[in-house]
Amino acid sequence: MRLKKIPYAESFLKESEDVIILSKESETLKDIKNKVEIEIGCGKGDFIISHAQKNEDIEYYAIEKFGSVLVRAVEKQIENSIDNLHFILGDAEHLSLLFPPKSVDRIFLNFSDPWPKKRHVKRRLTYKTKLDLYKELLKDGSLLELKTDNQQLFEFSLLELSKNGWILEEVSTDLHNQTTYIEPANHLTEYEK
Amino acid sequence: MRLKKIPYAESFLKESEDVIILSKESETLKDIKNKVEIEIGCGKGDFIISHAQKNEDIEYYAIEKFGSVLVRAVEKQIENSIDNLHFILGDAEHLSLLFPPKSVDRIFLNFSDPWPKKRHVKRRLTYKTKLDLYKELLKDGSLLELKTDNQQLFEFSLLELSKNGWILEEVSTDLHNQTTYIEPANHLTEYEK
Repeated sequence: MRLKKIPYAESFLKESEDVIILSKESETLKDIKNKVEIEIGCGKGDFIISHAQKNEDIEYYAIEKFGSVLVRAVEKQIENSIDNLHFILGDAEHLSLLFPPKSVDRIFLNFSDPWPKKRHVKRRLTYKTKLDLYKELLKDGSLLELKTDNQQLFEFSLLELSKNGWILEEVSTDLHNQTTYIEPANHLTEYEK
Repeated sequence: MRLKKIPYAESFLKESEDVIILSKESETLKDIKNKVEIEIGCGKGDFIISHAQKNEDIEYYAIEKFGSVLVRAVEKQIENSIDNLHFILGDAEHLSLLFPPKSVDRIFLNFSDPWPKKRHVKRRLTYKTKLDLYKELLKDGSLLELKTDNQQLFEFSLLELSKNGWILEEVSTDLHNQTTYIEPANHLTEYEK
């Protein structure tokens, strides 16, 4: 994604009612009664906005670390006034401050940055430490769903998932014919060691 | 693979010195002192002949259920007189009669029949029962290596392996740039539940 710096991004996001600024000091979100689904690296928000509009009984949280990108998502949300969608500005590594263990029903990763260089391997969103975070957040038996058009990230993710005790529930190498997401019910993703 | 019936196949194979006719009555092979590697569904044998010629200190066993195909492999072997290569005519499900548990160092599946119809799922060489057989045969920490150019079989195999406790050690979706096989040392494939 091209990053075009938007000067007003930071102040805009801070003043937006439904944007959580995530930091090391963030505290657990209260009063979440519905199912919770999270997209990590939501970019300009099209995916998560569409999901939130279709499933009003689910609370969606979308995190993005680049304010200049997230602005675009928040602007769209304001236009459409979507009550069950919340944006988070910050780094995913702090998500466990907002959400208690085993409280999340699904995590989406869509076209995450492949970080192709070996020295950046730890930044990939399917690196072991990230997977451990997702495992901590997700309810037992719930799904991590990822899509990528990057061959290296796809292969890396398969290996990392396999080595870290995750079980594949579905896999497709045909991105364009795999448009539907899996229905969460009755699917076990996580392998409890 | 096209199957052209060769009338003399059966008698030729029965008379060939180094072809094992595998049946329900087969007995354990004696006096195997070297490492053992098996190809299941060897077809006309090019892959396994090349491996056997390169690694004289490994005993290769190649099984094929169609006699008319196996004849071609055996003819090539006779031409090249390869001592460390042995062919087996029969069904892989009986392999545990020939080889004791945990006695095999590597199993290869190359371009196996995808059996695309759902009612034939049990015939796929990566179906659960087949994987269980490989697990029984393979030494702990040894590798199952498979190659396919069939997308459905690739995806099916990933799921079956994942669900049955196998750990992916390497994966490539780029068949033509993945020409080298993995070196077996230091690689753990099997996940002991």
